[in-house]
Parts: sequence; C-alpha cells; structure tokens
Amino acid sequence: MDYQRFFADALATLKAERRYRVFADIERQAGRFPHAVRHTPAGPVPVVIWCSNDYLGMGQHPDVVEAMAQTARRMGAGAGGTRNISGTHHPIVGLEAELADLHRKQAALVFTSGYVSNATGIATIARLLPDCLILSDSLNHASMIEGVRYSGAARAVFRHNDMAHLEDLLRNAGRERPKLIVFESVYSMDGDIAPIGRVCDLAERYGAMTYIDEVHAVGLYGPRGAGVAERDGEMGRIDVIEGTLGKAFGCVGGYIASTEAVVDAVRSHAPGFIFTTTLPPAVAAAATASVRHLKASQAEREAQRRQVARTKAALAAAGLPVLETPTHIVPLMVRDPELVKAASDRLLERHGLYIQPINFPTVPRGTERLRITPTPFHDDALIAGLADALVETWTHLGLPFEPQAAVTAAE
Amino acid sequence: MDYQRFFADALATLKAERRYRVFADIERQAGRFPHAVRHTPAGPVPVVIWCSNDYLGMGQHPDVVEAMAQTARRMGAGAGGTRNISGTHHPIVGLEAELADLHRKQAALVFTSGYVSNATGIATIARLLPDCLILSDSLNHASMIEGVRYSGAARAVFRHNDMAHLEDLLRNAGRERPKLIVFESVYSMDGDIAPIGRVCDLAERYGAMTYIDEVHAVGLYGPRGAGVAERDGEMGRIDVIEGTLGKAFGCVGGYIASTEAVVDAVRSHAPGFIFTTTLPPAVAAAATASVRHLKASQAEREAQRRQVARTKAALAAAGLPVLETPTHIVPLMVRDPELVKAASDRLLERHGLYIQPINFPTVPRGTERLRITPTPFHDDALIAGLADALVETWTHLGLPFEPQAAVTAAE
Repeated sequence: MDYQRFFADALATLKAERRYRVFADIERQAGRFPHAVRHTPAGPVPVVIWCSNDYLGMGQHPDVVEAMAQTARRMGAGAGGTRNISGTHHPIVGLEAELADLHRKQAALVFTSGYVSNATGIATIARLLPDCLILSDSLNHASMIEGVRYSGAARAVFRHNDMAHLEDLLRNAGRERPKLIVFESVYSMDGDIAPIGRVCDLAERYGAMTYIDEVHAVGLYGPRGAGVAERDGEMGRIDVIEGTLGKAFGCVGGYIASTEAVVDAVRSHAPGFIFTTTLPPAVAAAATASVRHLKASQAEREAQRRQVARTKAALAAAGLPVLETPTHIVPLMVRDPELVKAASDRLLERHGLYIQPINFPTVPRGTERLRITPTPFHDDALIAGLADALVETWTHLGLPFEPQAAVTAAE
Repeated sequence: MDYQRFFADALATLKAERRYRVFADIERQAGRFPHAVRHTPAGPVPVVIWCSNDYLGMGQHPDVVEAMAQTARRMGAGAGGTRNISGTHHPIVGLEAELADLHRKQAALVFTSGYVSNATGIATIARLLPDCLILSDSLNHASMIEGVRYSGAARAVFRHNDMAHLEDLLRNAGRERPKLIVFESVYSMDGDIAPIGRVCDLAERYGAMTYIDEVHAVGLYGPRGAGVAERDGEMGRIDVIEGTLGKAFGCVGGYIASTEAVVDAVRSHAPGFIFTTTLPPAVAAAATASVRHLKASQAEREAQRRQVARTKAALAAAGLPVLETPTHIVPLMVRDPELVKAASDRLLERHGLYIQPINFPTVPRGTERLRITPTPFHDDALIAGLADALVETWTHLGLPFEPQAAVTAAE
C-alpha cells in the first residue's frame, strides 16, 4: 500500500467536500484584547477577534497573567511528572480545593483539558458501574461522545433537551439498573440551555446519576460563576459537574467536581488522568487566580451580558439572520459551507474581523454558521463596526436578510 | 442503586489490594531542583526529588522560564479557543516548525499532552486506513493501548521487542493489507530500548507504516536531542515520531512529526486534536525555547549521562538490586506492593528523599519497584546520600541485597 498517496487522497476528498480547514495564525496581545495581530504570508496585519472562547477576556486579566508569570519564575515551567510520580504540585492541589469550593462539592479533580475530563471521566464512571446505561443528549459535545464510546457501556441517546424522551428511556431501563445521564448546560453552537431542574427530577425519580458539562457556562452564570446549575439553584442536585479552565477562566485544563467517593474513584481508575503529565504549576496558579476573581466579581459578567445584548440587538436591527439564544452565544446562520467560508474570508480580508466559519462536523451539514461571542471588551464602537461589516458582506455575497426562529431540537 | 456507596466500596477494594495511591504535594523551586518543598499536614518539609521526568532539569532553565513568563505577559494566559476557532496562536505555529525541524520531517502537530498524541494520533491514522492491522508491542504505554483500542482496528500484539514474533505477524497479515507498527524507543519502566533499525527493516520488507513513541528519549538521545532514532541513524525511516514536551523538555504537551500528508490528515480528522483548547502561548514559547536549546547544547545530555552512570555504579557497589539498563532510567526492584510502599515512605519520612513507588497497573504485579531518574542536577554528594539512605532502608526493612539481571521480554 502506498501510504503517502492514501493520506494525500484523503485530504483531497476533504478539500472537494469544502471541509478542509485553514487555521488563522493569531498573536494575542495582553491588554489589547480583542485586538490582535494576524500573521499572513504578506506580513502581520491587525485583526479584531469576534470568535474567542475567552468569553470574559480573563486571559489578559492582570491577576491571571501575573500569577502565571510569577509562578513560572518561582516554580519553573513544567510539573515534571504525572500526578502520582512527582507531578502533584502545590498549585494544582490549591486549584482543586478552589474548584470544589466553587461548585460546593466535596472534591474536584483537574485534567489536562476539558476534552480529557469528559473522555476519561465519563468512560471511567460508566465502566465502574456494573451494566451501566448511559443516557446521552443527542447534541452532546464530541468529547462526551468519546467518553460514552470508550466506556463500553450501553448507550441510549435522547432527543436534544427532550424530557419526555429521556423519561421514556429511563423508565424502560428499570429503577435498579445503574444509569448515568450526561448532558450540557449551555450547548455551544446553538447557544441554548438544558432544563437542568427537570433532568434532576427525572434522575431522582428513576434512580440515575447526573453528569453535566458546564464548560460554556462556568465563570459566566450564577452569582459566583459556578454555571447555570448554580444560577438555577440546582447545583446541589447534580452528581458530577464538569468544567473547563480554558474558556471563561482564560487558561487551559478541565475538571470534575463531585463527592469524595466519585472523585477519588475517577482519580484512581481513569487512564487519561493517571498516565499523563500534570498541568504546569503556572497554569494552575493562573486558573486559581481567575476562578477566585470571578467568584467575587460581577463586573465581567454584567459587562458581557450588556455587550452581548447590544450585539444581538444591532445585528437583528440590521436584518441579519441571528439565531435567538438565551445565552452569550450569537450564531449567525448561513447554512452553506462555501458561503460561510466566503463570508468569513471577506470579513477577515476586507474588514479585519475574525469570525471563524463553523462547518461539519462541528455542526450538522446545512447549519453552517458564523458563531459570534461578544466579550466585555467588545465595546459599542466595535459592535457598530461589526454590524456594518456584516451588512456589507451579506450584500456583497447576496446572502438573505431574514429573521431566524430559535433553534429547534431537530436541528 | 446507591451510587455513593458503590464508589466507596470500589475504593475500599483498591485499599485492600494495596493499590490506593496517595499523591505527594510537592512545591518545586526554580533554580534549586532537585531540592523542593513537600507540603504535609504538619507543615512544609524539604525534600530531594529522585523520580522526576524533568530528566534534564530544563523546567528550571532560565531561557525556558523566561520564555514562559514573558510570553504570558505579552500574550496573556490562555489560547482562547480550539486550533480552528481562534486558538492557533503564533507561538504554537513556531513550535510546530521547530519540532518538524528537530525530527527532519515535513511537518509536526502539537497536542495537549503526549497521552492525547498517542490516543488520538494512533486511533486516527489506523481508522483512516481501510482494514488496518495494528502491530503493537506488548509493553506499550497506556496511551498507545488506548489509541489502538479507540481506532477500532484489528490488533496483533507482539512480544516485547521480539522481532521474530513481529515478523510472523507481519507475514501472516500479507503484504497488501495496511499495517501500522506502534512501539516505543525507550520503555520507561524497564529502561530498555527497541531495535529500531530492525523494526524498520521488517516494516519495509512487509509494507508496514511505523509509529514510534520517543517520549522518554526526546531531548536526551541523538546529537540534536531528537531521540534514539536520531542516535541510531534511523529517524528518516520512521513514518511517524511521537514525542512529549513534558519530560526532558520540561514543559507540557505532546506532538507527532511526519510527512505533510500524514500530519494534515491527523490534523483534519483527530477528534482529540480538533475539539480541544490549544495549549497556552506561554507554554508553546517555553517548549520552543527548550527544544531549541537542546538542539544545540550537549552539556545537559553529557552531565546527565555522567550522573546516571555514577548513580548506577554507587547503587550496584552497595549491593542494591538495581536493574541493568542501557538508558537514564534506574529501576530498583522490590517486587512487592507493600514493601515498595514501605521503602518509599521511609526514604521520604526519614531521609527526605522522594522516590514514588511504582505499582500495578503501571507495571505488572510482582515487578513493583522504585524508579530513579538522576538528572544533571543530582550531584555526587546527592548520589552518595541516596546510596546511604537506600542501604539503611533496605537493611531496616530486611529487603534482599542482590544483583538483578537485565529485564527480560517476559516480564
């Protein structure tokens, strides 16, 4: 077999299907976010980032940056080992205590990423439980789907946020069979929210464990930034809360928070936790500073909510096809892989605005979109500029100006 | 089902089997490695680390630390997104170029960890190849085993470093069937080395791709620190080289280096790469500084080799059961889970030396050991102190003083 030819052909197929991704080479500048520099073959050019998951700009917060820089100077760059073999450093112990407190749980466990938290966390919990049935929302993130698959457990997928369907599946499984419901609070591409209280009602009625992914909510929702479950007063009813340090907290890494017993069981059995180098002390210290800040401060959350509302209003007023969402995520529907790429390219090249096109497999085919995430640092002038640039782009490409209904479960 | 009770029982089982792990809470101090502080309930106590994978102490190298601190201040803490959605930052583009150059390959791709490199890298390559057969060394690391499993491909395990067995399996598979040989250069627990040239001979003879894990070799072997394949002059014959930034390079993260086509195919298809936040700019910059330094400098490698040889000689002279290895890894065999724990505890509590006990599942039951990793910073006085402390501990616990043969494939 000619392996090189084979892989070249696989790439040609991707390109023919317009699914080949080109990464933008971005240089962030602490203190100037969302302004940044984009490196191009012709040299560096200025750009405004409108698609970052650094939702509150905490990645440039002085407390966070200083914690990272100073801890690197005090403790060095890397952890030097796995958690078990010399890699449990003092800042990660402190971070786990901070995260347990954030979610009012007995314990927390940090992983190298949110992806790994889900993949190895879900797999480990479900693998430990004998004959476990996993009930999984149909729009769960790729990392959760991997966790479900890696567990080897039986799986039943319920229609997105459809509680009647979830109840049918729970009832069919029987009360005694171990069951794990895995779902998200904020679904990142459509920006909708799960009915957390109703999931907990069903879990209690049918004897299921609950595992919620709050990666697009931690830092952003709830009086201390613990997520939508905190905001809704349901946090104490959830068995396992999974979150990330790489989005609103502005760093990198993932975690779960739960009871001592669950956390310790995952700590003791999860290959993706045991056999990997710990995050650096400087990263743990930066994340701790960020979590701690957002526990106390409402300013970032309030400013973000205000600028998100203004962005949605400005885009809707211009007749742009913005999807209604109850969250900070502003999807602008294009529904075509080539046109969404063309729109993104024009925004970047002509207007200096960076909004990555979102294509299959991140979203279903036919639902291609621009996904806009305003932060506290996207001020009113930037919002006005965004609306103007989008109108010019829509007009130039002949894209339809039309209001969009809120997303439905079928999408 | 009483879930909390169930997980508590699972932990009780681990404890009964002496497999419950307690992490040491260590505070590294840049500039003082291997001296560090251990946090205990009674307060902080000094400790000397003898089990770090920061093999060359690069985690405290001023160029590395300064790259991390300064990049955090210039670019902020986190990447703010996945590689595709605003997270491809300039330092990671530079790091990938540096790694491709290190291994003299067309391209490289960075993952959040070496674990993820293997798990999603192997899985993606094997999943793309139709009807692929994976030939996997029996002592491959957990992350490689996960990659093999996640691929869904057929697997044939060959006895550790047994080329006759590997050849049988290759011959049986037939020349035309796509085949991927996955193996390590340095096996981290026994410290032995694969016959890389002979694996390549077989791969060429039977038409297989080769994937080598060099995580315990990069930075350490070869004139530019590209690993054992470089040292042996076989680097150009290997299809995919996987390495880590979290051991000899002193940071965190993993990577593969290969042809443009293979790297681009993995980049485009690997869920564990696509759906996860990029490593921070500061981490990428620190890793780049480390790779660049070790490409040019022999001083760290030479000093490490010298101190490793002196450690092995001192332990052997004291009659301690040190396993012969051709590498920087010095296993001291105890072959009992309770005694290895007792030895480690005594070294820590009485002598202030930190050597984590290595138990199942990291090594097979009955091969429990202390795994010692001398670095350039473990000077002659520290080595003499280590030998004395080990003799005292061996005597106190009644452990046998006996020479050990080199490890065999059966172990």
